[in-house]
Amino acid sequence: MRIEKDGIGELEIPKTKYYGIHTQRAIDNFYLKNGKKTNPELIKSFALVKLAAAEANFKAGKLDEDKKNYIVRACERVYNGELESEFPLSSIQGGAGTSTNMNANEVVANAALEEMGEEKGRYDLINPIEDVNLSQSTNDTYPTAVKITVIRILRELVTEAMALQEELQKKEKEFSPIFKLGRTQLQDAVPLTLGQSFGAFAEAVSRDRWRLYKIEERIRRINIGGTAIGTGIGASLKYRYYVTEELKRLTGYGLARAENLIDATQNLDVFVEISGLLKTMAVNLNKISNDLRLMSSGPNGGIGEIKLPSIQMGSSIMPGKINPVGAEFIKQIFHKVQGNDLIVSAAAAEGEFELNALTPIISESVLESIEVLRDGIKMFREKVIKGITADKERCEKHLRASLSTITSHIDQLGYELLSEILKECEKTGKSYDELLKEKGLVKE
Amino acid sequence: MRIEKDGIGELEIPKTKYYGIHTQRAIDNFYLKNGKKTNPELIKSFALVKLAAAEANFKAGKLDEDKKNYIVRACERVYNGELESEFPLSSIQGGAGTSTNMNANEVVANAALEEMGEEKGRYDLINPIEDVNLSQSTNDTYPTAVKITVIRILRELVTEAMALQEELQKKEKEFSPIFKLGRTQLQDAVPLTLGQSFGAFAEAVSRDRWRLYKIEERIRRINIGGTAIGTGIGASLKYRYYVTEELKRLTGYGLARAENLIDATQNLDVFVEISGLLKTMAVNLNKISNDLRLMSSGPNGGIGEIKLPSIQMGSSIMPGKINPVGAEFIKQIFHKVQGNDLIVSAAAAEGEFELNALTPIISESVLESIEVLRDGIKMFREKVIKGITADKERCEKHLRASLSTITSHIDQLGYELLSEILKECEKTGKSYDELLKEKGLVKE
Amino acid sequence: MRIEKDGIGELEIPKTKYYGIHTQRAIDNFYLKNGKKTNPELIKSFALVKLAAAEANFKAGKLDEDKKNYIVRACERVYNGELESEFPLSSIQGGAGTSTNMNANEVVANAALEEMGEEKGRYDLINPIEDVNLSQSTNDTYPTAVKITVIRILRELVTEAMALQEELQKKEKEFSPIFKLGRTQLQDAVPLTLGQSFGAFAEAVSRDRWRLYKIEERIRRINIGGTAIGTGIGASLKYRYYVTEELKRLTGYGLARAENLIDATQNLDVFVEISGLLKTMAVNLNKISNDLRLMSSGPNGGIGEIKLPSIQMGSSIMPGKINPVGAEFIKQIFHKVQGNDLIVSAAAAEGEFELNALTPIISESVLESIEVLRDGIKMFREKVIKGITADKERCEKHLRASLSTITSHIDQLGYELLSEILKECEKTGKSYDELLKEKGLVKE
Amino acid sequence: MRIEKDGIGELEIPKTKYYGIHTQRAIDNFYLKNGKKTNPELIKSFALVKLAAAEANFKAGKLDEDKKNYIVRACERVYNGELESEFPLSSIQGGAGTSTNMNANEVVANAALEEMGEEKGRYDLINPIEDVNLSQSTNDTYPTAVKITVIRILRELVTEAMALQEELQKKEKEFSPIFKLGRTQLQDAVPLTLGQSFGAFAEAVSRDRWRLYKIEERIRRINIGGTAIGTGIGASLKYRYYVTEELKRLTGYGLARAENLIDATQNLDVFVEISGLLKTMAVNLNKISNDLRLMSSGPNGGIGEIKLPSIQMGSSIMPGKINPVGAEFIKQIFHKVQGNDLIVSAAAAEGEFELNALTPIISESVLESIEVLRDGIKMFREKVIKGITADKERCEKHLRASLSTITSHIDQLGYELLSEILKECEKTGKSYDELLKEKGLVKE
Repeated sequence: MRIEKDGIGELEIPKTKYYGIHTQRAIDNFYLKNGKKTNPELIKSFALVKLAAAEANFKAGKLDEDKKNYIVRACERVYNGELESEFPLSSIQGGAGTSTNMNANEVVANAALEEMGEEKGRYDLINPIEDVNLSQSTNDTYPTAVKITVIRILRELVTEAMALQEELQKKEKEFSPIFKLGRTQLQDAVPLTLGQSFGAFAEAVSRDRWRLYKIEERIRRINIGGTAIGTGIGASLKYRYYVTEELKRLTGYGLARAENLIDATQNLDVFVEISGLLKTMAVNLNKISNDLRLMSSGPNGGIGEIKLPSIQMGSSIMPGKINPVGAEFIKQIFHKVQGNDLIVSAAAAEGEFELNALTPIISESVLESIEVLRDGIKMFREKVIKGITADKERCEKHLRASLSTITSHIDQLGYELLSEILKECEKTGKSYDELLKEKGLVKE
Repeated sequence: MRIEKDGIGELEIPKTKYYGIHTQRAIDNFYLKNGKKTNPELIKSFALVKLAAAEANFKAGKLDEDKKNYIVRACERVYNGELESEFPLSSIQGGAGTSTNMNANEVVANAALEEMGEEKGRYDLINPIEDVNLSQSTNDTYPTAVKITVIRILRELVTEAMALQEELQKKEKEFSPIFKLGRTQLQDAVPLTLGQSFGAFAEAVSRDRWRLYKIEERIRRINIGGTAIGTGIGASLKYRYYVTEELKRLTGYGLARAENLIDATQNLDVFVEISGLLKTMAVNLNKISNDLRLMSSGPNGGIGEIKLPSIQMGSSIMPGKINPVGAEFIKQIFHKVQGNDLIVSAAAAEGEFELNALTPIISESVLESIEVLRDGIKMFREKVIKGITADKERCEKHLRASLSTITSHIDQLGYELLSEILKECEKTGKSYDELLKEKGLVKE
Repeated sequence: MRIEKDGIGELEIPKTKYYGIHTQRAIDNFYLKNGKKTNPELIKSFALVKLAAAEANFKAGKLDEDKKNYIVRACERVYNGELESEFPLSSIQGGAGTSTNMNANEVVANAALEEMGEEKGRYDLINPIEDVNLSQSTNDTYPTAVKITVIRILRELVTEAMALQEELQKKEKEFSPIFKLGRTQLQDAVPLTLGQSFGAFAEAVSRDRWRLYKIEERIRRINIGGTAIGTGIGASLKYRYYVTEELKRLTGYGLARAENLIDATQNLDVFVEISGLLKTMAVNLNKISNDLRLMSSGPNGGIGEIKLPSIQMGSSIMPGKINPVGAEFIKQIFHKVQGNDLIVSAAAAEGEFELNALTPIISESVLESIEVLRDGIKMFREKVIKGITADKERCEKHLRASLSTITSHIDQLGYELLSEILKECEKTGKSYDELLKEKGLVKE
Repeated sequence: MRIEKDGIGELEIPKTKYYGIHTQRAIDNFYLKNGKKTNPELIKSFALVKLAAAEANFKAGKLDEDKKNYIVRACERVYNGELESEFPLSSIQGGAGTSTNMNANEVVANAALEEMGEEKGRYDLINPIEDVNLSQSTNDTYPTAVKITVIRILRELVTEAMALQEELQKKEKEFSPIFKLGRTQLQDAVPLTLGQSFGAFAEAVSRDRWRLYKIEERIRRINIGGTAIGTGIGASLKYRYYVTEELKRLTGYGLARAENLIDATQNLDVFVEISGLLKTMAVNLNKISNDLRLMSSGPNGGIGEIKLPSIQMGSSIMPGKINPVGAEFIKQIFHKVQGNDLIVSAAAAEGEFELNALTPIISESVLESIEVLRDGIKMFREKVIKGITADKERCEKHLRASLSTITSHIDQLGYELLSEILKECEKTGKSYDELLKEKGLVKE
């Protein structure tokens, strides 16, 4: 054990641990037995922020070169995931992210000490706050790390969305010769092709892709350098300039400093905005899932116009049953994203003065929404969309059985007359085609 | 025009208006062009509260008998809806209900003056605040009026729920001989009767009725007499005793004074609780609506096992089309109630110190949820459930076509063997009955 | 009374009524005692759509010139609001908007008959479906009318948002010389100016304005001409071309036909998207309202750094009390918009096949959100922001009383040393300025 | 590796694994990189259900004694958490819980084989479906296991709620002599004691306790024995009787078979109901947190009437800063519970026919809400409430500075006169006490 102290008192920390007293207190304070941990992708981005800050402090003459180099190497280890188990904090935590920032400061400091050949806890040599957190505050590092994380995992989501769109377009082509009954309000309407159905799905996903693309534009303005409340107190002008440049270099993203750092520190509306766009995508996916479930319903006692691939057995009691589990997975992801969106907006609305104390749950909810969409869409494409087959016969049967094609005569015969014809059909049992011909209303 | 004044200044009020300067300012302050007005049922309850307060103040020796009588008669006119147009305020309003309370005070005062044969505005004779609002605050009258309203309209909802349950039970009996295919996850499962389906609907509604019944228990503790923050400042002990008694007498409800008036003034959790129960009912109604829509889908290209009554033409372009508009109406009511529930909980959570400033939107949302459920359920019963007919043939056809009955052999033959049989069916095209007999696994 | 009939049977309609049997059935079917009516702005847009369709049908050779002219004049009357009372339908209605479309068809037909000098109900002369609804379906007219409405009222909202931003910027300038205590997590932090606080508000509103501007881009692709499911059945190519052109001409908006009409008919994601952006704006307004309430809290037992204008008396029992009712109004508008956003996304996710049956509640919720934001922001600017005054003395007092300025030394002295100094302050009762000087750490 | 097969084909399973092919497919199908696993408490309850089923099958003569004993021992190992790592499935999963049920079946079967001294995978000896799942379906075991879990962890929550209430009541007593300013709408109102404030908190929590107590009543009706859709297909009457009895014995809970098993299988309204009650509790906790944050705000530039215990340093840049992180933690828990409540109701409303396919996300969200409340409340009591101290001087200062006590004269002097006095105060700078005495309105 080593002893660490802070403004409140002392605590024993196991010698092997890279985290220190601030993390330990937060572990005790924010214990959720079955809670989610701080997102590992966010930790990676924190490593980048700390690295950029070290470089910027060095260039600004605030950190000597040796220290800087140790810190940089430590950040690289954190970025590589080597020290993931040293970030045990709950994703829900009081303090607007201070605990996660201090966790990063402490792990980086102790890893840097290790690089230096010193024992952990020698904060007189490398200090978590005075060196690793130099010129920074939780209130600028945390949102900056979150935004970098959003961009990174969003790009993965974009890739998946693109692949999904392409797969849907393939199905659009494949199914273009198959005519089927259109349905509005679950009632027989007028015909279209099965390809057109998949074309509409693809078009919706294409809009979503465009939306995701827009998100990156919205999220790249960062507030690093603003420190506690955006006034930049405790950070030199040189540092402020360099730190953004370093982050751009490290990430390769089009990051830019927000013009009004006070605003950028206190207002989280951009997370509400992107959460809304993610929810929009989830709405489209849910709609597609509903249609696939309905189209494949039955197979005998339902619509059964398509068949989804069998990816697992459906029942532990009904032999042979296969269920649309892929589509059900997507539907639950929709509900998760919709639930998260509520968390994001309701919490973001609670900002007060120069900060929003609920930043952790807001950030983590946005990250979760992106991740479940990314993983869900990949599964949806690979295990559901790709293997869909059409039951052409069934499609034709439904089309013929319905009265849907009568609407094609509306231009010539009008609504009232056709309504009369349909009533006569019901009375006489004749098909409307028969009746139209009998009455000389259409030619062969 | 008459001139009225308050702590801020003077305003001209049209001579014919029963409301006064406080109402006029609120009209100007809370203008929503297409917004809903304060619920008329709430106004009626306010009349009861003002009436009870006048009686209690009289008994407590604070109000002379003549004034009291004029005020009582004025309250009766408000209760009867005679002066409804004098309550023009937006249902969304700042001020925790102060404006609606003042609106009531002013209308009652001026109507009382009228009873007295005096001109409106003669507040030296009967004063909206010093007489009509005597011993009261918005913070005890408003929640009390809301709770009385909840009980009144809730009882109407209970009546409708009971009628719905009975109608569903009639259908349960009517449809009990009709066997149909059960479906899980929209896939063919095992058989049940159509009667059992309606029995399950009835059972769910029965639970909801019980829940509604519980709501009344939860809501009848009122905070009248607590005045501004529950300490009862400005109200005598005698008054406090009498006012609850009067309200019990007037309403006939089992009202009781909350034990902790400070708590009852600041905490609105009971509205969150009842909103949650209303939402639960809406969830069940939505589920029933989904099933009715699915069962009646088609009629030719869908499941078509039941037929909903035709209550209006479904399309302006597709002749003969009938849609399940009643079920769609219910589904939208579910969404309204779910949206309201969010408003209620998110706003109730924003209580601060001795009051929740957002009381108006909370109250009005709860009232709206009750009302749309009440009206929706009535429609659902009369125009949808009552006229449902079954297509017995269709039910049997689906049942026969499915493999669902194979599960009835699971007890004897086991899951693995039946799975093999089903695979053989697929290969050979034979029915599983055939195969089971061929293999000597079942007797005729 | 006149007798009208439809596919279901006959109904008596009062002779004076412009609406007919389809509307009457919907009145009966979708009765909500205290419900909101169909948005009058939506009715206006329906008039434009019917007018454009009449012109397009005329140009396409489907409607003769006389009829067209009568219909056009009737549409103008509807657009002018002259017949508003003839649109009595509930905003929540089954049938994806069919009833409102038929309501428009019937009122336009009867008004056209009136123009013609004929009696209402002479549908043999001008028919609601065959003439007024010619080449149309609810499923293309309704969404088109909604989108036109969104653009129209959105522009009003943009104007208000712009005015709000300017007012906030004026306050930013006015308050720029006033230093005050910054607060994070409601705890004393580091200094900024009151001007900067209002600058941050203005910046947030500026982003919202940009978002609203984007909404118009997203919403202007309309599906008119797609008829029932987007395949354009029953509408000629000529008509399809002309109708969009006419609508562009009539509105002056940059409308365009959606490229994939099947998608545009079935997917309502664009409403989810814009509802999310409206919610984002509401989040910012809620945050500003919170800050104004906190800053003006007290006045004596709170923070009291600013004073909001007195717009109405705050209490019916506490003389002299003034409450931040304007900010409370805005907060309730936030809750309304957040509740509506849930309705929009949850209902939009329920699309099935070629249509979303819940379109009415989705559309009306979006329209309501725009309207309450528009009216709320106007009030907020005029009655709250404009009249805010600062209590400079109070600001300075809080700043001096806090230890917040110590952070300005962090660059020179570091976190650990300053922490020690603060502990010593607590023990000795000395100010940190004193101690810093005693220890020679700072110069005069 | 061992080879396992199902109706779809074969898969290699690592020899050491207790789970089998059905679990493996679900691992692949429902992969969420950073998703939550199936709740370990739910797994424990599954062990109880499987154990009870084995005993019931044995008593019903369906399972021989040896097999039964091996299965029972295997279930005990699962219950004890020994095989937790063998339950790797995502908490979000398609298939209404089938995968988790099959996971339990496979792990129990292989653990039973181990007990028997046989190799894993020897399903000819003990079969996951035919033996472990005998007489069961996912659709009765999963909801039953969820309900048992709810009761178990709910009781832990009740214990914590009781302790919180007691702690608040201690503070009520401790602070009963301290008078403070009451505030409505953040504006100075009339006096109460700090003890009364905590008394109101305690009262609200007491209502919540009562609600939790009610939840257990609502949730104890289970549907085990109903199998696939509630008709009990594949389960003997004897088994059905014994299995409930066994579960009662094993858990000691007052479980009872639902009267209508078809209803109990398809309708999840009880989860909506209890989620609403949990949300109600979260609303109260959020309100208390808000008050504690406001009361402790400052300490110098805010209200500062109480002091929360320092449980961790508040800032990485502002030395000495302490934040109300415990209250912020609770606020985020409120948002989580509110988000979960939306997930629960929106998903429960999507039930279709004989089942709700989204059962997994519904169940897991309810369990999560209970757990975060349980852990959050424990923290709140121990680390926040317990150590609160009052700043009596500050309380008195605010009370004296405000005009709040003037309302105590309202009974004698009336609202209008007091309003005049207050205006005179403002003009003359005199206190109202002075003025009242000057005017002879009050005696010394």
